[in-house]
Amino acid sequence: ASQKLLLLPGDGIGPEIMQEVKKVIAWFNEKGGMSFETDEGLVGGSAYDAHGQSISEEDMAKAMAADAVIFGAVGGPKWDDVPYEVRPEAGLLRLRKDMQLFANLRPAICYPALADASSLKKDVIEGLDILIVRELTGGVYFGEPKEIIDLGNGQKRGIDTQVYDTYEIERISGVAFELARTRGNKVTSMEKRNVMKSGVLWNEVVTQTHKNGYEDVQLEHMLADAGGMQLVRWPKQFDVIVTDNLFGDMLSDVAAMLTGSLGMLPSASLGAPDGVTGKRKALYEPVHGSAPDIAGTGAANPIAMIASFGMALRYSFEEVAAADKLDKAIANALDKGLRTKDIAAPGQATVSTVEMGDAIIAELDAL
Amino acid sequence: ASQKLLLLPGDGIGPEIMQEVKKVIAWFNEKGGMSFETDEGLVGGSAYDAHGQSISEEDMAKAMAADAVIFGAVGGPKWDDVPYEVRPEAGLLRLRKDMQLFANLRPAICYPALADASSLKKDVIEGLDILIVRELTGGVYFGEPKEIIDLGNGQKRGIDTQVYDTYEIERISGVAFELARTRGNKVTSMEKRNVMKSGVLWNEVVTQTHKNGYEDVQLEHMLADAGGMQLVRWPKQFDVIVTDNLFGDMLSDVAAMLTGSLGMLPSASLGAPDGVTGKRKALYEPVHGSAPDIAGTGAANPIAMIASFGMALRYSFEEVAAADKLDKAIANALDKGLRTKDIAAPGQATVSTVEMGDAIIAELDAL
Ligand SMILES: CC(C)[C@H](C(=O)O)[C@@H](O)C(=O)O
Ligand SMILES: CC(C)[C@H](C(=O)O)[C@@H](O)C(=O)O
Repeated sequence: ASQKLLLLPGDGIGPEIMQEVKKVIAWFNEKGGMSFETDEGLVGGSAYDAHGQSISEEDMAKAMAADAVIFGAVGGPKWDDVPYEVRPEAGLLRLRKDMQLFANLRPAICYPALADASSLKKDVIEGLDILIVRELTGGVYFGEPKEIIDLGNGQKRGIDTQVYDTYEIERISGVAFELARTRGNKVTSMEKRNVMKSGVLWNEVVTQTHKNGYEDVQLEHMLADAGGMQLVRWPKQFDVIVTDNLFGDMLSDVAAMLTGSLGMLPSASLGAPDGVTGKRKALYEPVHGSAPDIAGTGAANPIAMIASFGMALRYSFEEVAAADKLDKAIANALDKGLRTKDIAAPGQATVSTVEMGDAIIAELDAL
Repeated sequence: ASQKLLLLPGDGIGPEIMQEVKKVIAWFNEKGGMSFETDEGLVGGSAYDAHGQSISEEDMAKAMAADAVIFGAVGGPKWDDVPYEVRPEAGLLRLRKDMQLFANLRPAICYPALADASSLKKDVIEGLDILIVRELTGGVYFGEPKEIIDLGNGQKRGIDTQVYDTYEIERISGVAFELARTRGNKVTSMEKRNVMKSGVLWNEVVTQTHKNGYEDVQLEHMLADAGGMQLVRWPKQFDVIVTDNLFGDMLSDVAAMLTGSLGMLPSASLGAPDGVTGKRKALYEPVHGSAPDIAGTGAANPIAMIASFGMALRYSFEEVAAADKLDKAIANALDKGLRTKDIAAPGQATVSTVEMGDAIIAELDAL
């Protein structure tokens, strides 16, 4: 039976980098013995332009029915002034919420060929391999009340609500412990329990989940601000970091930038396994944004997007060998010195988005 | 007339580093023509041990009456299990709230002598001089509801509330614009307006405040997660950063660590000028914490604490020349190669807390 992929390229460089993923999907269909069926939809500003919503009901329905959603990026100055409810990001947030993609996996890996591209010293980041497990459907992103109230006299009040329930913390920490077992066997949980009640509960539930069946995994607690510091000071101390939606947003971006290869980093957003089929809903997207400033110039790096499809192979389709092969093809292209502009050293020759995609296909052929 | 200082050493290394500040205060009284009167109080775990509260009413009253509070650090594993309401941090948060210290100034400066101590490449941080202006009495730190609710069935709900009113954003951005004028004339405002309603309001009010009298200052808006990235990528793009309480907590810690000199960085927390006297309530504290692991070993770096007193000279007492002199004395001690353990290169000789304090006094004598 074929596997259904919904491609949502989005805005800015999204469509260009999605183009390269399509080549990779075609390669696996033709030469990798797979049978992916792809459909395409609109999200973000491009969806707003087409029908006044950041994602249509029809595309939402397709996403719910897909085996995996491959997502590009959304947003750009063009839509800075659209109403809050239909801003580009709303499409992404709705996908996360309606598909219940509570577990966001963000690896921060330093590719050996790129160790010099980081603003950090080489010994600090060489060989870096950490995984941030971010809670994605709770916290201040979705809690109510979330509103601006007019108080009169020229005064307004902006309100957001951070809410976490026991079960939400339990399931995300379970994912972190499970993943740690396949890696360095260590989990660092980050919150601000010294200031936030949700942080107190977070700390308590992670500790309890650890006791209930994960005591073989090393667990450490760190305040989120100290965690940000430690990421900059000595990131290799971490294996898996588990944290809430907002801290995860901040910390994963810092972690991504450590590697000097933001254009390289993929992410997976996973739901709970279905009780009957065991399948998880899933969305895969690059960590980087829509980079409107370089859209259409051919300068975008397609690797994060292609590697996101690699995560789909690994987490949605259990095609571990194929995923490893794709990762290897990417590493080989880099080893040969191919660089898009974002990862080129000063003076180094660069290739375009399409050339990088073609090179990865050539490496797949060669493997 | 003499100036009243309340010293609150707190926990961990707090008392040791405060000891060195006392020498500096005495020096300015004896040789700098000043007349500081000091009183001392308890805060944090040490206050809890003494009378079951993280700060006593008596010490709160002293703080309210002081011309400036000089604060060490609070917290430590000893108090990990005390009730939330009387945890060490509650004392600091009450001081901030009751004294209405809404403006937290956190400079992140890279001392030339220490450019090698950072985990970042030298060219990325050499000459770095940014100022984070963090809102300190609002946001998720103090918003209500802030509670854990028992939902039954083993489920609890942790809730925190982020609240910002127009006037709070107005006054903190005013401080940022004023300070930018004395520096690089640029302000970057950071929030998450793509996810948070308080971020939408923040963005709107900062833009409006800029229009109302600060258009000579360059204003830039950045999403807080992108801001964290950019701090790691190329921090010298920033001059003044203005942001809310929680983002300020995270971002200032990341910024502090960039410099490689966490033990060096002071901060000032200021109230509004009094309508009659024009004086501001103020508290000065190092950015680093109580470091319980090294307390009592003589390894603590007293410089951040001493430089915090330097900020008091500058912002509470308008003793700019004295503040410059103290900063110069610190730089001179560093230039001579004096290093506490935290800032020593591998293999470099180190001095103790007391020796560093004495060296700075000697430099003051020599200037
Ligand atoms: C686009 C935005 C809503 C999103 C977020 O804040 O989660 C992005 O920053 C991310 O990290 O995926
Ligand atoms: C000690 C703690 C309450 C405090 C904060 O979160 O504000 C600290 O991290 C800081 O940055 O001053």
